[in-house]
Amino acid sequence: MQDIIDSSVVENENAARLTGLNRDYAALGDKLGRRGVSIDAIRDKVAAFGIAIPSWGVGTGGTRFARFPGPGEPRDIFDKIEDCAVIDQLTCATPRISLHIPWDKADPQALKEAASRFGLGFDAINSNTFQDQPGQRRSYKFGSLSHTDAATRQQAVEHNLECIEIGKAIGSKALTVWIGDGSNFPGQSDFARAFDRYLGSMKAVYAALPEDWRVFTEHKMYEPAFYSTVVQDWGTNYLIAKELGPKAYCLVDLGHHAPNVNIEMIVSRLIQFGKLGGFHFNDSKYGDDDLDAGSIDPYRLFLVFNELVEAERREAPGFQPAHMLDQSHNVTDPIESLMVSAGEVRRAYAQALLVDRQALAEAQEANDALMASEALKAAFRTDVEPILASARLKAGGAVDPVAAYRASGYRRKVAEKRPATEGSGGGIV
Amino acid sequence: MQDIIDSSVVENENAARLTGLNRDYAALGDKLGRRGVSIDAIRDKVAAFGIAIPSWGVGTGGTRFARFPGPGEPRDIFDKIEDCAVIDQLTCATPRISLHIPWDKADPQALKEAASRFGLGFDAINSNTFQDQPGQRRSYKFGSLSHTDAATRQQAVEHNLECIEIGKAIGSKALTVWIGDGSNFPGQSDFARAFDRYLGSMKAVYAALPEDWRVFTEHKMYEPAFYSTVVQDWGTNYLIAKELGPKAYCLVDLGHHAPNVNIEMIVSRLIQFGKLGGFHFNDSKYGDDDLDAGSIDPYRLFLVFNELVEAERREAPGFQPAHMLDQSHNVTDPIESLMVSAGEVRRAYAQALLVDRQALAEAQEANDALMASEALKAAFRTDVEPILASARLKAGGAVDPVAAYRASGYRRKVAEKRPATEGSGGGIV
Amino acid sequence: MQDIIDSSVVENENAARLTGLNRDYAALGDKLGRRGVSIDAIRDKVAAFGIAIPSWGVGTGGTRFARFPGPGEPRDIFDKIEDCAVIDQLTCATPRISLHIPWDKADPQALKEAASRFGLGFDAINSNTFQDQPGQRRSYKFGSLSHTDAATRQQAVEHNLECIEIGKAIGSKALTVWIGDGSNFPGQSDFARAFDRYLGSMKAVYAALPEDWRVFTEHKMYEPAFYSTVVQDWGTNYLIAKELGPKAYCLVDLGHHAPNVNIEMIVSRLIQFGKLGGFHFNDSKYGDDDLDAGSIDPYRLFLVFNELVEAERREAPGFQPAHMLDQSHNVTDPIESLMVSAGEVRRAYAQALLVDRQALAEAQEANDALMASEALKAAFRTDVEPILASARLKAGGAVDPVAAYRASGYRRKVAEKRPATEGSGGGIV
Amino acid sequence: MQDIIDSSVVENENAARLTGLNRDYAALGDKLGRRGVSIDAIRDKVAAFGIAIPSWGVGTGGTRFARFPGPGEPRDIFDKIEDCAVIDQLTCATPRISLHIPWDKADPQALKEAASRFGLGFDAINSNTFQDQPGQRRSYKFGSLSHTDAATRQQAVEHNLECIEIGKAIGSKALTVWIGDGSNFPGQSDFARAFDRYLGSMKAVYAALPEDWRVFTEHKMYEPAFYSTVVQDWGTNYLIAKELGPKAYCLVDLGHHAPNVNIEMIVSRLIQFGKLGGFHFNDSKYGDDDLDAGSIDPYRLFLVFNELVEAERREAPGFQPAHMLDQSHNVTDPIESLMVSAGEVRRAYAQALLVDRQALAEAQEANDALMASEALKAAFRTDVEPILASARLKAGGAVDPVAAYRASGYRRKVAEKRPATEGSGGGIV
Repeated sequence: MQDIIDSSVVENENAARLTGLNRDYAALGDKLGRRGVSIDAIRDKVAAFGIAIPSWGVGTGGTRFARFPGPGEPRDIFDKIEDCAVIDQLTCATPRISLHIPWDKADPQALKEAASRFGLGFDAINSNTFQDQPGQRRSYKFGSLSHTDAATRQQAVEHNLECIEIGKAIGSKALTVWIGDGSNFPGQSDFARAFDRYLGSMKAVYAALPEDWRVFTEHKMYEPAFYSTVVQDWGTNYLIAKELGPKAYCLVDLGHHAPNVNIEMIVSRLIQFGKLGGFHFNDSKYGDDDLDAGSIDPYRLFLVFNELVEAERREAPGFQPAHMLDQSHNVTDPIESLMVSAGEVRRAYAQALLVDRQALAEAQEANDALMASEALKAAFRTDVEPILASARLKAGGAVDPVAAYRASGYRRKVAEKRPATEGSGGGIV
Repeated sequence: MQDIIDSSVVENENAARLTGLNRDYAALGDKLGRRGVSIDAIRDKVAAFGIAIPSWGVGTGGTRFARFPGPGEPRDIFDKIEDCAVIDQLTCATPRISLHIPWDKADPQALKEAASRFGLGFDAINSNTFQDQPGQRRSYKFGSLSHTDAATRQQAVEHNLECIEIGKAIGSKALTVWIGDGSNFPGQSDFARAFDRYLGSMKAVYAALPEDWRVFTEHKMYEPAFYSTVVQDWGTNYLIAKELGPKAYCLVDLGHHAPNVNIEMIVSRLIQFGKLGGFHFNDSKYGDDDLDAGSIDPYRLFLVFNELVEAERREAPGFQPAHMLDQSHNVTDPIESLMVSAGEVRRAYAQALLVDRQALAEAQEANDALMASEALKAAFRTDVEPILASARLKAGGAVDPVAAYRASGYRRKVAEKRPATEGSGGGIV
Repeated sequence: MQDIIDSSVVENENAARLTGLNRDYAALGDKLGRRGVSIDAIRDKVAAFGIAIPSWGVGTGGTRFARFPGPGEPRDIFDKIEDCAVIDQLTCATPRISLHIPWDKADPQALKEAASRFGLGFDAINSNTFQDQPGQRRSYKFGSLSHTDAATRQQAVEHNLECIEIGKAIGSKALTVWIGDGSNFPGQSDFARAFDRYLGSMKAVYAALPEDWRVFTEHKMYEPAFYSTVVQDWGTNYLIAKELGPKAYCLVDLGHHAPNVNIEMIVSRLIQFGKLGGFHFNDSKYGDDDLDAGSIDPYRLFLVFNELVEAERREAPGFQPAHMLDQSHNVTDPIESLMVSAGEVRRAYAQALLVDRQALAEAQEANDALMASEALKAAFRTDVEPILASARLKAGGAVDPVAAYRASGYRRKVAEKRPATEGSGGGIV
Repeated sequence: MQDIIDSSVVENENAARLTGLNRDYAALGDKLGRRGVSIDAIRDKVAAFGIAIPSWGVGTGGTRFARFPGPGEPRDIFDKIEDCAVIDQLTCATPRISLHIPWDKADPQALKEAASRFGLGFDAINSNTFQDQPGQRRSYKFGSLSHTDAATRQQAVEHNLECIEIGKAIGSKALTVWIGDGSNFPGQSDFARAFDRYLGSMKAVYAALPEDWRVFTEHKMYEPAFYSTVVQDWGTNYLIAKELGPKAYCLVDLGHHAPNVNIEMIVSRLIQFGKLGGFHFNDSKYGDDDLDAGSIDPYRLFLVFNELVEAERREAPGFQPAHMLDQSHNVTDPIESLMVSAGEVRRAYAQALLVDRQALAEAQEANDALMASEALKAAFRTDVEPILASARLKAGGAVDPVAAYRASGYRRKVAEKRPATEGSGGGIV
């Protein structure tokens, strides 16, 4: 397994932080020990928790107004794999990449080799029927899997079938389907008929799923359609998973809900009814902002993980959620954002592991709302950074991934060989 | 059948408006006729459309800050029935009353007689486990049907069973269940266990439903619980209806959703999956504001009716929604608000009947978003007031119910016999 | 003045609708006459009401996910002027174009000639510092007028000064400034310092305004920045206008507010404090959706116009708002959407003119909330289409602009000479 | 100064926690010391930070649906003062009480003596014109300071003048004015005239302010009025403070904004323009939920304090905000909630004090969004509980206030002498 960042750089950076880390780890271990919690056991659980990186996440993102690329933008999927390898080398938290087709289309064997060179594998594969591609016969302007025109639906189905084939070739075990279908005007779309057509198309996709695969459907309240979307919320998403069958699950993107919605409760419901497929982690203040996970409302992320840890403990049937980041890095170096975000997801997991579940359950049973709240907050306010850092260090990564990355000069180096790209005006012309 | 308002008052008021109404009706008839639409047929459909009045709606409502009663507040359910009779006499649109137990508890025979005297019947009966009642053994402070304590759940179940008994005695055919259960703190409630307990309780209620009854469960995003509610949205509501069985349906209150949510789409989904039970009509700008139907966003109300008329046309299986107002009249005479609101609901229905459904379907099929939108807007902007007024007039009601009501002096008269009530400070002490 | 659409096409289409229009106009005139309102007077007021077309609006818009162009996309500002001329020829409602620099940069003399050929003039000129332009020395990735770097701010100021120069040359009388400046992370930007820098830059721009010009600043809650924006709401916008001086006014885009915000009240406040500059009209369900005006919540648009008509009546000091559409036409022919939208704006104006202001004022004074509401709703539900159509017809336009446009084959014809353009992936690739 | 809770109880509870506290404090001191930060200095700053308790907060709150009182509800202001004394004894964080008139009306001398017995003083005094009071001549049903009727406005003004008189007698230095004025229907209120009337009334109140007083006006988006409120947002609030004069400031209640609004930015703007008066701290998920501070989104609370600490550092002119809790404790013991909430406010303050402001400023200047974000998050994730506990301990309070309170049996004891109160149905009956 090949390192991208010179290991001596990482070692130097780690060395400078070792004393501090050891003292903080010991102090936290002491504190947790008083509660009868083993810090090492927590650390090991965290170390085993992997988050998938979306291939598109390593490029600079943009809005409909503009995209401002940074230096050294990846030119193709192979550059992207290298960037992902940097992330995993330093964080030891992101062993899999999630591809987007056709953006990442390439020879499957070459993809596998490129990834395995860095010890990376492939997560769920993502289809794309929200954009038109050169050479495509029918446009998705008015929809894809739910289009009024049968041939367009068929084209979209076939694209998903092709994604499954690619996924099989590279070792994926799941297909993620998010569509942009919807409407911009009341009346434009007949809700019931559009949903019927969508279900019909998805049944054709579902039929082609290999035995050991799952399909994740993703709901979203709005954007790119601004009056209605075909898969608008978890209620519709649940209906889809139910109609399709046991291999169909719901994917939750944290930024795809109405304002104020209690997302952790949706997570709980989907777990309870056996249909939680996984997550697209990110954070949001207004809508599908695709901001870095945990950057806006870290307590909300923790509350989601509180549900996941509880489900793990109860061994909820069919519970094996997929964890992926899905963010748009418009003003940061994408590699840095992804490293930090993977850390934030693990942080929420670590904090959730620290919840005193017996105290919580007793407070709930006694309707002691204050103590129940305190049980969560006590875990949340624990500074688990020493746990995260120790997990990275033990796995051969960096105590401080961003510092090591900056010290390595990676971005500067790739900028020398990857040509500068121009910004774009987004969708507004 | 007894009149409450002196019929000569109504006749005088109608006489003053007859010429205008006839001219406007003729002009609209001419216009619709050019499209091949019979105004009389529309008028007759509208005349057959009844909306239930909630008994509590005829009293002045309030907020947690204050309640400012008006003169002549009804003292009990018999006063309320009289007020409802006024509404139906003038609008000929509200033939049924929906009772709330224990607020309206009384001898069933007396209730039936009081109502039938005015030609009124009873709609769905509403249970109340969101308040404690004098003499009650266990408090609902921490929940009712989902309470952690089995005896409290049992008490809540029994209250619902009692409601069914009362309903049977007065001729209701449905039970509406809305609970205030939820939590104010993350951690206070275990989402999954609370929902399990709720389902257990509701199964006991469901088991007691007579053969020809339906049960309507109502979702609400927040209030009185402000972090989570047990039945938070239509997704959860659908799961309930599905778990309970074929007599269980979802009730949609227009004000119970997250900001920006596309409610007409929820209506469509529930119709499509056979679980739309009915409506609590009102309007809202911010939350469960319980404002008068159609007063804030009349186009949204129309879009809901567009779904209903379409479902009617398609003869969607199991489609027979109940229509009820549920509003809080804080600054108006409740009788006036209810008369106007019943008119607004009928207005939306009439407008939806005017949609050129063939043109709409063709535009949808052709992805002609502009023409699809225009098909709805053309119907919406039709001033159907002559149709509504004619339907009332033909049925013996008032061309202008508010004018007739004001001319009658009803409020002044009841204020003489009903003692003034004091305002209250609501829930904030 | 040159016609783009063959006048015989318009005449044919009009002829087919004349009888119906005359009957509907007469019927409405009769009805209004009973209230003492002259339909002709209303019609003439409406006919005098002009809405500016944004040059960018005639191209197909998109999102960060994709843009799906239609046939015959305008190649440059001269094509755009032709498309605008079509809109004005058929609606007689849109006499001015609002340019966006540098998108529309061209020889000013040529611009003036191109426009005047069709009887068109130029409205406010729009600067663009939310995108990087080829050849530009400094990037706006991290802001423009509020950038931490003085030279970048200076570049943005100079761009605005250039816009003023261009505007002077073509006869504009106002500059509209909207910036994308803001932040995506808590901490990224120091709110106070950023606002100070913005004010400093705008003072430099303000200093260059000709005596008879106004500057409009535009607030927006979010997008493209997703944690904070520098000019986030009307409160900040007001502070800007106040700091800058008497030629500075606030521009209100209907889609730029938080969910549930009462926009008509903001309009009222800005009028009351002498700082309402004008509007970017559109509609929205979720955010800055840039949907067609009046397509989602027509009553809200009416309520805004209710404020405008009232201000007109009171002769509020400094009240002379600019009216412009600002929409993104993603799924319709932009020309059709703009014609319909201009009609919707006029519709709201006409309805607001019909409000019985004495009845309204009396109801307000008497706290008769129901009658006050009815005064507005009675006006709103009046079908004023005959007034709008008659205004167009009298001015030489089309009774039904979309029908005439479709009959003309304009889009097909320009598609023959304007080459097909490719879709784009927006900002996310 | 008298203790309410037996000091031996507190000492026992503290003793059991001393070793743990000392170790955690030392470990945190070590960690902060590595950064050159003195933990003792932070602790002393925190210890000097006081939060006012609203008198009404010690009673159980409710909603419009119900209020479920707990045992030992305070019977009057003197009971409330005792409850406040408990809070301050254990937290040493809440030295002042904020009264609400007429709820807390009593002989001023008796009030002063009751409070000073426990070392407590009085904060801002709150007027109440959102409820009718027995014996009051005119109703506030349709408004108070902005009522259309001059005599009603005068009555509301006089009530505020009386509040000032009471405040003078008990040592308050500020008046807080929140009104429920607004409307429930479009048209009900003329926005501009209502605001004019409000300003006129407030000028009369302002004129009566003593030289060394301030007046705080409070904005709120909705509730109890559900279409519009007279003081709807910070923009209007700023206009008020500006119109009134230098003693007028804006009060920010964290729950009074539109969904998604960036509140910390509003705080920054008000500081920058010299008009931030202070806070009503609480938390919210949906609206004015009045949940416990920091219970829903602790990072948001921290971001507000980040602004406050920065303003303190810059010595922003006129910056001396008042800090008060304003919560509705519906499901907890109010004393417990207030103790925890005061702790949460201090927690946010302590975390904000730990922000490395130089690193932050440098990252901002360099547009290093990631490092700027990390500067805030590193401070936020520091577990400052040892600092808070040490500040309490040093001042004579409890290491764990809730544990000490529960051990003391205070609630049980007062429940013996304070009679049980009945629940109420709120405003909906």
